[in-house]
Amino acid sequence: MDHEAYHFRIMQKVVEKIAASPRAHEGVLRLISDYQKVRSVTETICSPLAIEDHQIQSMPDVSPPKWHLAHTSWFFENFLLLPHLKNYRVFHPQYNFLFNSYYKTVGDHYPRSERGLLSRPTLQEVLEYRHYVDEKMGHLIQGTSDKEILFLLTLGIQHEQQHQELLLTDIKHLFFTNPLRPIYHSRDLSEVDASSIPLQWVKYPEALYSIGHQGKGFGFDNETPLHQIFLPSFKIGSRLITNGEYLSFIEDRGYQTPQLWLSDGWDIVLENHWKAPLYWERKEAEWQQFTLAGTKPIQLSEPVCHVSYYEADAFARWAGKRLPTEAEWEVVAKDVPIDGNLYESGILEPQVAHPSPRPPSTLLRTSSPSRGEGGRVVQIFGDVWEWTQSPYTPYPGFKPEQGSIGEYNGKFMCNQMVLRGGSCFTSLSHIRATYRNFFPPQARWQCTGIRLAEDVC
Amino acid sequence: MDHEAYHFRIMQKVVEKIAASPRAHEGVLRLISDYQKVRSVTETICSPLAIEDHQIQSMPDVSPPKWHLAHTSWFFENFLLLPHLKNYRVFHPQYNFLFNSYYKTVGDHYPRSERGLLSRPTLQEVLEYRHYVDEKMGHLIQGTSDKEILFLLTLGIQHEQQHQELLLTDIKHLFFTNPLRPIYHSRDLSEVDASSIPLQWVKYPEALYSIGHQGKGFGFDNETPLHQIFLPSFKIGSRLITNGEYLSFIEDRGYQTPQLWLSDGWDIVLENHWKAPLYWERKEAEWQQFTLAGTKPIQLSEPVCHVSYYEADAFARWAGKRLPTEAEWEVVAKDVPIDGNLYESGILEPQVAHPSPRPPSTLLRTSSPSRGEGGRVVQIFGDVWEWTQSPYTPYPGFKPEQGSIGEYNGKFMCNQMVLRGGSCFTSLSHIRATYRNFFPPQARWQCTGIRLAEDVC
Amino acid sequence: MDHEAYHFRIMQKVVEKIAASPRAHEGVLRLISDYQKVRSVTETICSPLAIEDHQIQSMPDVSPPKWHLAHTSWFFENFLLLPHLKNYRVFHPQYNFLFNSYYKTVGDHYPRSERGLLSRPTLQEVLEYRHYVDEKMGHLIQGTSDKEILFLLTLGIQHEQQHQELLLTDIKHLFFTNPLRPIYHSRDLSEVDASSIPLQWVKYPEALYSIGHQGKGFGFDNETPLHQIFLPSFKIGSRLITNGEYLSFIEDRGYQTPQLWLSDGWDIVLENHWKAPLYWERKEAEWQQFTLAGTKPIQLSEPVCHVSYYEADAFARWAGKRLPTEAEWEVVAKDVPIDGNLYESGILEPQVAHPSPRPPSTLLRTSSPSRGEGGRVVQIFGDVWEWTQSPYTPYPGFKPEQGSIGEYNGKFMCNQMVLRGGSCFTSLSHIRATYRNFFPPQARWQCTGIRLAEDVC
Amino acid sequence: MDHEAYHFRIMQKVVEKIAASPRAHEGVLRLISDYQKVRSVTETICSPLAIEDHQIQSMPDVSPPKWHLAHTSWFFENFLLLPHLKNYRVFHPQYNFLFNSYYKTVGDHYPRSERGLLSRPTLQEVLEYRHYVDEKMGHLIQGTSDKEILFLLTLGIQHEQQHQELLLTDIKHLFFTNPLRPIYHSRDLSEVDASSIPLQWVKYPEALYSIGHQGKGFGFDNETPLHQIFLPSFKIGSRLITNGEYLSFIEDRGYQTPQLWLSDGWDIVLENHWKAPLYWERKEAEWQQFTLAGTKPIQLSEPVCHVSYYEADAFARWAGKRLPTEAEWEVVAKDVPIDGNLYESGILEPQVAHPSPRPPSTLLRTSSPSRGEGGRVVQIFGDVWEWTQSPYTPYPGFKPEQGSIGEYNGKFMCNQMVLRGGSCFTSLSHIRATYRNFFPPQARWQCTGIRLAEDVC
Repeated sequence: MDHEAYHFRIMQKVVEKIAASPRAHEGVLRLISDYQKVRSVTETICSPLAIEDHQIQSMPDVSPPKWHLAHTSWFFENFLLLPHLKNYRVFHPQYNFLFNSYYKTVGDHYPRSERGLLSRPTLQEVLEYRHYVDEKMGHLIQGTSDKEILFLLTLGIQHEQQHQELLLTDIKHLFFTNPLRPIYHSRDLSEVDASSIPLQWVKYPEALYSIGHQGKGFGFDNETPLHQIFLPSFKIGSRLITNGEYLSFIEDRGYQTPQLWLSDGWDIVLENHWKAPLYWERKEAEWQQFTLAGTKPIQLSEPVCHVSYYEADAFARWAGKRLPTEAEWEVVAKDVPIDGNLYESGILEPQVAHPSPRPPSTLLRTSSPSRGEGGRVVQIFGDVWEWTQSPYTPYPGFKPEQGSIGEYNGKFMCNQMVLRGGSCFTSLSHIRATYRNFFPPQARWQCTGIRLAEDVC
Repeated sequence: MDHEAYHFRIMQKVVEKIAASPRAHEGVLRLISDYQKVRSVTETICSPLAIEDHQIQSMPDVSPPKWHLAHTSWFFENFLLLPHLKNYRVFHPQYNFLFNSYYKTVGDHYPRSERGLLSRPTLQEVLEYRHYVDEKMGHLIQGTSDKEILFLLTLGIQHEQQHQELLLTDIKHLFFTNPLRPIYHSRDLSEVDASSIPLQWVKYPEALYSIGHQGKGFGFDNETPLHQIFLPSFKIGSRLITNGEYLSFIEDRGYQTPQLWLSDGWDIVLENHWKAPLYWERKEAEWQQFTLAGTKPIQLSEPVCHVSYYEADAFARWAGKRLPTEAEWEVVAKDVPIDGNLYESGILEPQVAHPSPRPPSTLLRTSSPSRGEGGRVVQIFGDVWEWTQSPYTPYPGFKPEQGSIGEYNGKFMCNQMVLRGGSCFTSLSHIRATYRNFFPPQARWQCTGIRLAEDVC
Repeated sequence: MDHEAYHFRIMQKVVEKIAASPRAHEGVLRLISDYQKVRSVTETICSPLAIEDHQIQSMPDVSPPKWHLAHTSWFFENFLLLPHLKNYRVFHPQYNFLFNSYYKTVGDHYPRSERGLLSRPTLQEVLEYRHYVDEKMGHLIQGTSDKEILFLLTLGIQHEQQHQELLLTDIKHLFFTNPLRPIYHSRDLSEVDASSIPLQWVKYPEALYSIGHQGKGFGFDNETPLHQIFLPSFKIGSRLITNGEYLSFIEDRGYQTPQLWLSDGWDIVLENHWKAPLYWERKEAEWQQFTLAGTKPIQLSEPVCHVSYYEADAFARWAGKRLPTEAEWEVVAKDVPIDGNLYESGILEPQVAHPSPRPPSTLLRTSSPSRGEGGRVVQIFGDVWEWTQSPYTPYPGFKPEQGSIGEYNGKFMCNQMVLRGGSCFTSLSHIRATYRNFFPPQARWQCTGIRLAEDVC
Repeated sequence: MDHEAYHFRIMQKVVEKIAASPRAHEGVLRLISDYQKVRSVTETICSPLAIEDHQIQSMPDVSPPKWHLAHTSWFFENFLLLPHLKNYRVFHPQYNFLFNSYYKTVGDHYPRSERGLLSRPTLQEVLEYRHYVDEKMGHLIQGTSDKEILFLLTLGIQHEQQHQELLLTDIKHLFFTNPLRPIYHSRDLSEVDASSIPLQWVKYPEALYSIGHQGKGFGFDNETPLHQIFLPSFKIGSRLITNGEYLSFIEDRGYQTPQLWLSDGWDIVLENHWKAPLYWERKEAEWQQFTLAGTKPIQLSEPVCHVSYYEADAFARWAGKRLPTEAEWEVVAKDVPIDGNLYESGILEPQVAHPSPRPPSTLLRTSSPSRGEGGRVVQIFGDVWEWTQSPYTPYPGFKPEQGSIGEYNGKFMCNQMVLRGGSCFTSLSHIRATYRNFFPPQARWQCTGIRLAEDVC
């Protein structure tokens, strides 16, 4: 439900280390710069919108862009300014009620499903709120070396990055809902459909592996602790599943064959009349796809996107394969450098898998490969979040913590599936091999796609 | 349901007469002036709103102000410009789909309940649409004496006046829905609570009366034909029921006593947890009331407003009286001059009944009285629409007509109750003694109130 | 909603007259005999059912037969035995909660929509309850001349007759719901489809008429007072509309043409995918009809049955006519002897209109005609309840009464339409010209059909 | 959703072994005896019911007992008699439609939520159906050694055992729904509340364990394959959580403290107004509990039962512990003999944990203990199904199979949690250490309870 509630708490010990090191000051300087950058990117993302677009909630999962703008500011106000900045006065006494998402220890909050009914505060007032908070945050951070503050600052930055991805997915959904189909950014959609590299099966051996986050850099608490897991040998697909491959599933009556589906998934297919991924539309004989740059014909070599877990799972069954577990995925990804078709590429759509990460065309960009037995695995970071067959559960030894920030560590660990790898909407500085994203199995307005795996008998 | 679908067709014969008379040109000139005035009033009503306020649909019955602005223009475009202005090009090819309310012969229309999701067209674009239509309408009307056009022009003006009342009721509802409770216009709410004139029972004799519209001036087809009806002698209350009288009903456990209610009404009371009229809120010991000028304490002498038919009926039963029939009401009202606390007074709230229609205080204004046996009946026009006990049905001899405009003459003649007299949101030039408004018995976001009647045994 | 809540109170004055007359004793004797007969008929109606059939609630409007058996006994227990029989002990302390339908002053009651979940009391226990009540009622009535008791006894008998009709409509619905389509009674369905008499238009003059109940015999309070009503001249159809005529409406795309329908009705057509009357099913090219004797081909000359008000109204609009008002119907029916195809004929289906009320074939039976200008009007009593265009409202001067029995006199006077004339499920001794039945406009599991009228211009 | 769809397929290889062994005939004889026994037990379970009780569906999760009686027979008819008995004629052509639960390859089926509307076939007809199937099954099994038949026979027996447990849980629910609260079987409820053994924490070491089914005896396919899993050291509670311990959670405002709950669980608590386990009712100061033997005061030492996963999880968080994983549970249970308070004890309620499995009082019965470091773990089999923190997912290497029986192997592997150990409603011959039961996290009408675990830091 509260899908925006990504796992948001950074490891405190990591921050402690930073602050304690001789290069502590350098760390603070970078955090300040990161804060400014992240705040600015959020407003950049909203800059192509009309005032009216900022307050649409096209379905309960979506929040209006104006709400994201305010809520991310509320996060800093509530968790940093109020407890830590002396004599801080809140910008408006009712904003805590309006812009708290779900932190129940912080007080009542406005009902999620009615966020689209808030014409006031106006966009102008929300932007004033943002700038008020930014100014006060400047006072707070200036020269501080308080570890708690630095920890919360980092957390707030990560939190806002998560909302940047939600902003993009929500804008895409609300534009699609409007019969006039507004265009978010201009791109040349006429590009030739480059062919994808062939799909190969890369093998990894049976072993006692370690997965989870530890030590270097940030990580949310749901990525901890680092722990051992025994995996039988497995094979993983060298690239993402393409639109063309998914189209074969559609044409083979995949959406009309109950045997391919989980029981809950089949009910949802019937109830919602699903016939294809979200944003696909049939125009006479041709399938088209809505993008932030407008509607274009389906490109067969691009990765399929906007499928639910149920669709990913049914596709895998149809293909005679399965989805990877999150542990398998992490084993494959753990030593791969973080690059790929992420938010910074500016493309805002998944791209064809190319043999080299930086192909000559600036339109293509593929992440660096992982090497297993028998091949290289590409498109690990960016493009689309990859559904795994792993339900979102606590790692062995995971400990819920105290206090408002930590109030809900495990609160979403039920009825959700883990996704890995980030998407074309995810910031480069936000993603890593241990990152655990999660959504309910029916969600498909996020940039979610498919990578297959198989057992080694 | 489609409550905005007031009975919108003017009597064609009336227009014919106007056009045929030696003073035809004068009639056309007045129509042009009326057109300009009505278009301008609509925009004046929206002028205190923020851009964001224009697109809120706070419940399915409500339409966003931006939608009203566009739909009233669509009415002129679709029923006048398209069929009658040579070489007319529609402003936008999809606006017919977006801004058709429910005319099924005109094509598919956008779902009513999703009007709040339309960020595009923007307000700016809708205003451009209005002005484009106004310019083209100027070309069309200039010098015409085509009776069909003049008829449709009159109809479009009446239609827009109906939407002006809806705009005000919808703005009130959407402001109330926002926890920040915005203020629409400033008024001094501290005025002394003047006492109302005493409630008397004025008698009318048994007779064969005539009711309905005929001849002079405009009327919708649901007001026709003029016909005879036999009425036993009855008594009617000399003024509207006040907040103070309604409060006695509340304090006598009216909302907790099923015997006082119609069966359907009692179900709705329980389901919606009704405890008082809409816009009443209890703040500790005191009842307060939300108005377009903000929240104020309940004024005991003002007419009660925003009650459903079920509440009006239960109040009447509690009082040992009944609601009047629409025929009784019309008999009382038929010779009363049209004045009172209407939109033009600028107060936008019902006012205390005063013995003279134009009391010294500019804050008070009461309609001219009707005279029966034993007293004078005031507050006939303006203040609040008065629920009658009459279901909305066709008059004997009513004939459904042909064509798109007349497509749905009797379409709403089921499950609705007739209301009479206009409200403080109704234009003076829009109301008359034969006017039949109608809403479902549970509706209460309109300015709806209570006048009682009783039998003479 | 609480459609079983027919208007159940007989005029007290009438009973007083009976009891006061020299022939009082004779009246009491007849009442005792009526009581015994009515109780026995109820059990006869249930006799073809399996134990299992007795507890099915196939939709919220339907009550399980077992519930009807118990509720009608509860009525006598609660309103006669408890207040009037000395030392009476209730059969079971929880039956008042389980078998009270909606009398809120009598205490809480079990939710209507869950009546199908009551496996206990078993049918055997309910029959014991009936016989216990019958025995005690014998003690109470024996030799009494208490007017209150005689009044309540008459009322209880009328109430049980109403439930007999509901039992038959509910059994028909629950049998239809079961894919095995059980058969209630055996009849020869192969009969030749006799042709109906031609449809003529019989004229009645403009006049000040009197309608309503007064004086001789029983009547519910909603039939009172007798009062004057002015009617313009009108014409009424000489017989009911047939299946064949209704089929023409279907074949002329009646169910696909929104212009023919009331707005609320059209929404219901779409929502429920209505394509024909209830119990009609298309088997390849042929329309078939489910009856209590099984499924048979549509008989073109039989009256159409199981249509809602919306369908009756749309049919009338399609035919260029209208439905009669209840006053018009009563004017036509007032002097016609009560006979026709009622429950006593044992046919349990509407029959072809025959020129004489007692045709040679025992399979046909048509009520005596009324004579207007230009023809005779038949099928007035029995066959199907006839929808009128009159909403169910109080007659002028109608007075709600005090006490539990009279608690809800006007409680259902909203959102319902009046039906007249009784059906093939109605007892001869239950129907009369002034009888006002009423149901919501979407109801169609009752035996409801169509007679047309038109204005005389 | 389709909770009755336990994992129903036995390992084919196992059957092959049985049939191929020199003692094959003995195996067949035992299967015949098992068939007869299981069919007879099902009817014994229904024997205290009235005919009326057999057709109640008190909520969508519940099926009417009559439906269970028919569906289990349909299973044998459809999967054994139709494909394998020469010239077999189905008992009734529509029973395949009515009594197929969800096997989509077998054809359409009657909607699950309307099973309570089927008065026909009557109970008598369903029993005739059972006996017809039994007779034909006798012909089929007699002297066969066909491995496919023996496999399907075993499967049908296991399937019927699962429905026996559902029959008992469904009867309990439908009796509770009836305000008369019928009693299923008589038991002395006045027994002294024996005190439970103290709760201890028994430690198991970190290791690479094997879990899953292999080889000896039957197992469903979801228990396979046997595979290795690495577990850190853990501690497990020596017995089940008691009513008294759960009451402390309630009294400590457990149901009013959102921080203790999973987000989805908290929504369900609010929506359903949960305040205690299902079947608990507050009578003034005292908590009472509905059982198949009637209502009795809460016994503090008995295991808490009828809690959902959300409640078990919230309780664990409140207690500072966690639920065990299914792997941990299986490690503890794997060498424990199968005994305990199961269906055969006839008690049909969970019992106080006793230090010895067969205590002197015949009223108490506790399963044999498992021995870890620091203590013995009891109540492993029987009493209540124990919620684990493991979502129901395929084991590594699990392979979906072909054909109707195997159609849906993994179909329910989403949105459900694994439960272990069987309950007082489970047959001794049905349960084993590797058995994986599963239900959605909100289900609580099954006999579901709590055992805690904790990490070893």
